[in-house]
Amino acid sequence: MSTPGSTSFPIYLDNAASTPMLDEVITEMLPYFKEHYGNPSSLHRFGRVTMRAIENARAQVSSLIGSKQHEIIFTSGGTEANNLAIKGIAELVRKTNPEKNCIITSAIEHESIMEAFSDLEKKGFEVSYLSVTREAQIETSALKRAIIDDRTALVSVMYSNNEVGTIQPIRELATITHQKGGLFHTDAVQAVGKMTIDVKHLEVDLLSVSAHKINGPKGVGALYRREGLNLAAIIHGGGQESNLRSGTENVQGIVGFGKACQVAAQRLVTYETEVQALRNYMIDRIVHEIRS
Amino acid sequence: MSTPGSTSFPIYLDNAASTPMLDEVITEMLPYFKEHYGNPSSLHRFGRVTMRAIENARAQVSSLIGSKQHEIIFTSGGTEANNLAIKGIAELVRKTNPEKNCIITSAIEHESIMEAFSDLEKKGFEVSYLSVTREAQIETSALKRAIIDDRTALVSVMYSNNEVGTIQPIRELATITHQKGGLFHTDAVQAVGKMTIDVKHLEVDLLSVSAHKINGPKGVGALYRREGLNLAAIIHGGGQESNLRSGTENVQGIVGFGKACQVAAQRLVTYETEVQALRNYMIDRIVHEIRS
Repeated sequence: MSTPGSTSFPIYLDNAASTPMLDEVITEMLPYFKEHYGNPSSLHRFGRVTMRAIENARAQVSSLIGSKQHEIIFTSGGTEANNLAIKGIAELVRKTNPEKNCIITSAIEHESIMEAFSDLEKKGFEVSYLSVTREAQIETSALKRAIIDDRTALVSVMYSNNEVGTIQPIRELATITHQKGGLFHTDAVQAVGKMTIDVKHLEVDLLSVSAHKINGPKGVGALYRREGLNLAAIIHGGGQESNLRSGTENVQGIVGFGKACQVAAQRLVTYETEVQALRNYMIDRIVHEIRS
Repeated sequence: MSTPGSTSFPIYLDNAASTPMLDEVITEMLPYFKEHYGNPSSLHRFGRVTMRAIENARAQVSSLIGSKQHEIIFTSGGTEANNLAIKGIAELVRKTNPEKNCIITSAIEHESIMEAFSDLEKKGFEVSYLSVTREAQIETSALKRAIIDDRTALVSVMYSNNEVGTIQPIRELATITHQKGGLFHTDAVQAVGKMTIDVKHLEVDLLSVSAHKINGPKGVGALYRREGLNLAAIIHGGGQESNLRSGTENVQGIVGFGKACQVAAQRLVTYETEVQALRNYMIDRIVHEIRS
């Protein structure tokens, strides 16, 4: 982690695991620690201030992914968003149509997807895992072979892989799923803020986001849920977040998440080019200096 | 909210809804925003620093309620802790013993308990609601009448009521429950940090805590789970929190929660007397000056 003989100078190469928070994100959050501390569910002035802050953040998050504001449900992070999407759909679909008992995902998903599917498998759902190519690519033909009839309730495929970075053909996979009457979710935790994403163009039904992967705080994330799509809650209580995610809102975290999305949207113009250049530079030096 | 004619000077009387964060709590959290941002699941130095911070906070929380450190599971708040306790037990108990299909709570619980019970009722559990006296008191005789045989999986009664403040005889209720082979949970969100609580003396199996009710941050809480008690997770994924609550930990929130517990433990010595004096003073002035 440091050059031998030098003073300690750590180089952090694990931004896919977590990122430091930006100064502008911290600045945005601070007033919600001591000054604006009302419970957003309170009807008095203190509560109205924090409720407005949440709605402002909701606008910032939705703007980054091209959704409507009320299509964003705040959660405690990407893992909860994934659990809510998968269990929330599976439970509801089976209740209204017991025949729709099949769910599909890929072999290279994040643990929060894998374990949610495994939980549903124990509860009687039939699970299929799409295999991938050597480059961790999911081919549309694999999904076509897996969806054989209209018994598929949900397909969930990650947008960009957390270990090797492979980007999947989400729009095409969503289209194939819809043609067979299924719903489509993507875990976009490693993609949002790093590439241009428009949920309306992608035509996905559900999409998960995490704040701490894009220089926002840990402990907050969101699930995009297409307008009109029914979903069952997994945490019940006071009815916050359109009754889909109860519990006093993590106000300061949500405010920081909103700001991180706003900054990400601004830097997106140059981000891909810059990161690609950095990646190529690193690979180039490793190959030429270390290998030789 | 302000004296007519005066400049705005709001008086906040809703500390049972939420509280401002203490300066020492904020100070403790700040380094985890930009300096120590590693993912606690990462094995490198950045991750080890944040993992240590979580374990330090776990010691602070457990110290406030007299539990062992590993009996604390961090959650996104009191609502999630309540959901995890109730659904986590009900699901497991029914799986191992389908006869144990009864669950009991009171008529004056927080929505997160009420709605979790209502969710389980839809899933086939038999639910009983204990009635209360005029003073919102739950009498031990009411529980004795409700637990008629050994089919009760779980009893959940709040420690102190969030609207009128009534304190329930938790230790006695837990004893009655155990005599009939049931497990006992208490939602202690409004009690922890405000009165001396010792889970070993109370002999409860599960107890919920929230940070933002005791001058800690919103979006973090904990469930005390007695050593050796099996529980099913409701959020699946990377296996954090002894595999009972997956998802990258809200490091800065957990650090702030720990500090808030440490401060609460210190002030507890004088807190009850001071708050009682304030309450009596307020009631006295309202009765004598406003009523007359």
